[in-house]
Amino acid sequence: MIDQLVSNIKKTQAPIVVGLDPMLNYIPQHVQKKAYEEYGETLRGAAEAIWQFNKAIVDATCDLIPAVKPQIAMYEQFGVEGVIAFKKTVDYCKGKGLVVIGDIKRGDIGSTSEAYAVGHLGTVQVGAMTYAGFDEDFATVNPYLGSDGVKPFIKVCKEHNRGIFVLVKTSNPSSGEFQDQVVDGRPLYELVGRKVDEWGSECVGECGYSAVGAVVGATYPEMGKILRDIMPKAYILVPGYGAQGGKGKDLVPFFNKDGLGAIVNSSRGIIAAYKQEAYAGFGEANYADASRQAVIDMREDIRSALS
Amino acid sequence: MIDQLVSNIKKTQAPIVVGLDPMLNYIPQHVQKKAYEEYGETLRGAAEAIWQFNKAIVDATCDLIPAVKPQIAMYEQFGVEGVIAFKKTVDYCKGKGLVVIGDIKRGDIGSTSEAYAVGHLGTVQVGAMTYAGFDEDFATVNPYLGSDGVKPFIKVCKEHNRGIFVLVKTSNPSSGEFQDQVVDGRPLYELVGRKVDEWGSECVGECGYSAVGAVVGATYPEMGKILRDIMPKAYILVPGYGAQGGKGKDLVPFFNKDGLGAIVNSSRGIIAAYKQEAYAGFGEANYADASRQAVIDMREDIRSALS
Repeated sequence: MIDQLVSNIKKTQAPIVVGLDPMLNYIPQHVQKKAYEEYGETLRGAAEAIWQFNKAIVDATCDLIPAVKPQIAMYEQFGVEGVIAFKKTVDYCKGKGLVVIGDIKRGDIGSTSEAYAVGHLGTVQVGAMTYAGFDEDFATVNPYLGSDGVKPFIKVCKEHNRGIFVLVKTSNPSSGEFQDQVVDGRPLYELVGRKVDEWGSECVGECGYSAVGAVVGATYPEMGKILRDIMPKAYILVPGYGAQGGKGKDLVPFFNKDGLGAIVNSSRGIIAAYKQEAYAGFGEANYADASRQAVIDMREDIRSALS
Repeated sequence: MIDQLVSNIKKTQAPIVVGLDPMLNYIPQHVQKKAYEEYGETLRGAAEAIWQFNKAIVDATCDLIPAVKPQIAMYEQFGVEGVIAFKKTVDYCKGKGLVVIGDIKRGDIGSTSEAYAVGHLGTVQVGAMTYAGFDEDFATVNPYLGSDGVKPFIKVCKEHNRGIFVLVKTSNPSSGEFQDQVVDGRPLYELVGRKVDEWGSECVGECGYSAVGAVVGATYPEMGKILRDIMPKAYILVPGYGAQGGKGKDLVPFFNKDGLGAIVNSSRGIIAAYKQEAYAGFGEANYADASRQAVIDMREDIRSALS
């Protein structure tokens, strides 16, 4: 699947992933209204609004981008109905040829981590049958529990040609509280980065990159540079661009000399572009067109920073 | 909710939480067969088997125990249908007066963590209406992303009288890989423990304990002793008893002198008791009775260790 991701990135010439993290307040009134008319102001109605919103944005951007990253928290907040919308979104995006990164930040131990891996990246056996539960291509994984927590994901990735991105240095202001603590003279996130490199060494695809990637925030470019060196074969999923403050020039250290090695996420900046002054001209009715323009602008911003 | 948990523990005189972590291979053949006859060998069939299995165990043990801890990974492996069974289990257990600890190990940043918190512990607004998504009483939270990731949970806990257990020192063999790394002369888990104490200081209930608890594995009793002192007001959720190797005497350091302060989880040891030699006499047909006896034996093991 890392080969598919790299192939999609080369094809689109856009190392961009669109974060499908729909808050209700991002969703235009007319989309919400239609959903509520059909299903009432219910969890089902909210899930329908999210799904229709996602669908329009995916339709408007799928030829420009290699991948999407639905953030499952935004769906879980609506309970079971939200989770159904998550699954519909995953399936729809895959049908459009997009690589789907489930931003699920799961992590547990042993058989429990394996259950998450099976549910999100693999298949489960029921009697004589096998089924895929959520069926994303990649998942984000939290490393706090150590190798016991990560290796079951890698096992499932190998069996089903999937991949993971392990949280190494997250984009938020307080990420340093634990991640930056100095261990043997170096910050903890470097130790996690070295484990990512080790875990990934047996899963390197034809593209030269590993099925075990890393999450490193755009808001910490200097740390990104060091982590890029520590994990040369890891694809880096870079959140924090745009709304969180990261800019095109901050992204350079995350890429390798081959122009590959990183994929940059933007969520709000794209899916709620119509709310920004720069795209207000599209109007709320044409929110998906605003998202398309935001993708084009982000692509140009990254291209000019990398060139 | 911490007051409710402590009240339930005092009433049952059993600091025990039953981990509802149903693997299909724990579920007796006759339960699976009935579910597959009704729904086929499908995800729905598997979810029905899980739900019927849980229900029988809850019915057989609910008068003896204060709380249950469904592990959401075991449900997510069956996709949306599994998540529906998770929600049914949560609702059923609450209806029986049990405190429900959602073992979800979520953790993200800012509005994303808040979305998880809203979905699992709070309510979400849809138009003029509000709904609870999954509606557990407590959730487990992963601290790797720092205060940004944990505080949104605490906010929702305050608003809705709920609680969390933050992963501090997990029970698995490789938990030390990152958690034991020495920072300023002390292991990282102690730093996390000090943050738990700080985060919880504003949420202390009438019982004297905080809505911000901690997860510390029974497999590390010496670390439990130190963490008990660092977080005097935190309830400690202790996994790792029984199948993972922790014994009654190992649990003593996790309790305060008031005989409170810890609640010990057992999953496999109780829900799959009928598979153990000690309970084989019950027979597969009477699996729930075997679980009841396993709860009684666990209670006695803890009582004798604490006396």
